[in-house]
Amino acid sequence: MSNYKYAILGTGALGGFYGAKLQKGGFDVHFLLRRDYEHVTKNGLIIDSKDGDFTLPKVKAYCDVAKMPKCDVVIVAFKTTQNDLLPQMLPSVVKDDGVVLVLQNGLGIEEEVANIVGSNRVMGGLCFLCSNKVGLGHIRHLDYGQITLGEYAVDYYPVGITQRMQQIQKDFETAGVRIELAEDLLLGRWQKLVWNIPYNGLSVILDATTDELMADVHTRELVEQLMYEVALGAKSGGRIISVGFIEMMLDYTVKMKPYRTSMKIDYDEHRPLEVEAIVGNPLRKAQAAGVNLPLIGCLYRQLKFLDGRNRWK
Amino acid sequence: MSNYKYAILGTGALGGFYGAKLQKGGFDVHFLLRRDYEHVTKNGLIIDSKDGDFTLPKVKAYCDVAKMPKCDVVIVAFKTTQNDLLPQMLPSVVKDDGVVLVLQNGLGIEEEVANIVGSNRVMGGLCFLCSNKVGLGHIRHLDYGQITLGEYAVDYYPVGITQRMQQIQKDFETAGVRIELAEDLLLGRWQKLVWNIPYNGLSVILDATTDELMADVHTRELVEQLMYEVALGAKSGGRIISVGFIEMMLDYTVKMKPYRTSMKIDYDEHRPLEVEAIVGNPLRKAQAAGVNLPLIGCLYRQLKFLDGRNRWK
Repeated sequence: MSNYKYAILGTGALGGFYGAKLQKGGFDVHFLLRRDYEHVTKNGLIIDSKDGDFTLPKVKAYCDVAKMPKCDVVIVAFKTTQNDLLPQMLPSVVKDDGVVLVLQNGLGIEEEVANIVGSNRVMGGLCFLCSNKVGLGHIRHLDYGQITLGEYAVDYYPVGITQRMQQIQKDFETAGVRIELAEDLLLGRWQKLVWNIPYNGLSVILDATTDELMADVHTRELVEQLMYEVALGAKSGGRIISVGFIEMMLDYTVKMKPYRTSMKIDYDEHRPLEVEAIVGNPLRKAQAAGVNLPLIGCLYRQLKFLDGRNRWK
Repeated sequence: MSNYKYAILGTGALGGFYGAKLQKGGFDVHFLLRRDYEHVTKNGLIIDSKDGDFTLPKVKAYCDVAKMPKCDVVIVAFKTTQNDLLPQMLPSVVKDDGVVLVLQNGLGIEEEVANIVGSNRVMGGLCFLCSNKVGLGHIRHLDYGQITLGEYAVDYYPVGITQRMQQIQKDFETAGVRIELAEDLLLGRWQKLVWNIPYNGLSVILDATTDELMADVHTRELVEQLMYEVALGAKSGGRIISVGFIEMMLDYTVKMKPYRTSMKIDYDEHRPLEVEAIVGNPLRKAQAAGVNLPLIGCLYRQLKFLDGRNRWK
């Protein structure tokens, strides 16, 4: 168990859950909050979890990043639609030998962070977590929770397993969170997009849950075509996604309980959609490598239209 | 002026309008109706038109095609979603030397009709008409009305201008309907799809009017990409649609009043959508010629999903 200081930027369904688990596991955790700041300062955090409910009556809460101590591991846990705040936030909160761990969906975020703190101070994590914020400082953890962790290096060069990764793995596992180490972060990110692009995109465009998309023969086929386009995008970045992986994702989704995707929840709540991170960046990455992804391009334009209109309503 | 007997199969916004114009112009017109049959038998047809309102207190109305006389020109005026009725309807109502005139949207319909009545007895017409049925036997003509008329021959071989086309043109123009003669019906059909596929499709999928689609930079681009895919489809059938034509369609739509497409009206009314005729057939025609149209394929699958769900609601 390390004596790492952890910062959680964005204490919502995801950051609040992992941060609370770490604090409960005995780590020194510093939470950045916005709307919930006063409430959490007074009342702490409540976690309802399928692995056991718990409360943290006292947490170190901040509403201003400048007041936070410098930390060893700075976890970026808000949505990518807030990432324009990162240049202003990160420099003051990450130690010189610390690391920024990006727990966000989509592609290309680590590059943005590397431009701010340097490319040897960035890691990425892919969360398989099903949780919601149900009230001020109150989070409900429904299912899963594991994180796939990878180091970032310039141009997503795969750097294998580092000591720092292993240390963070140990800390999280001490706190009860399973961590898988990825030798190639970019491959992991593209793999996650195999699911995220078709289901997040189509759920918003067609007002549909995952089971509806899989039950209709036409959308079932469109989902599959989109998955193969994601694989084509991955290939343009030198990463191979197998037919078997795609078949596994389809099979897994058919067997899953009916699911409303996170992008659909954002849409229904009239929040900005993570279109750029999840759809736009992969599209542009492939395009820059000379590969056209027409179906993903179609989804992108439909989502941009819907997102733009939705936020005015 | 001919002594042609005209049959109107489907006395709705389109068939009712053209049939009434022909009868008012002095022609012998026989109307097939379904829901409006009793009302129209008693009360005739009422046409509110920007070119002058008129009523026809008495029309020859039928609810059974078997009771209709054999006609020289049989106009198919219902939606393509009813075309499964054609094999049963057409043989008894068209004279041996008569012609079936298909006034429907989409592609490939004339081939279906040719399989029923023979390929030398089919013509197609592209209607530029803005009209609605506002009540039983009551039609409101809002704008336009001209028809582009073309002969069908096997494989849409262009047959130029025939005497029969010129006779029908004369009759319609006597009745006050402008007719343009097309030497190449298939080119005309693909040209109409340049507008119909993007606007009909996206208006349903994104719940949008034409002006909304043109005002947003992303859907504006998607519309244009779809138009170029339609041109690619046309090319797979040996027909050339120029860049200038596409630019004209975009420009024309920007200048048009905000418009709810016919497919969107059908969707809002929970009626079956003409997805197969307008989107599915062009897609399959191009595919059969070895040309993939990915964006149109994406629209097709999204529309099939929405259409299927919409009819149960």
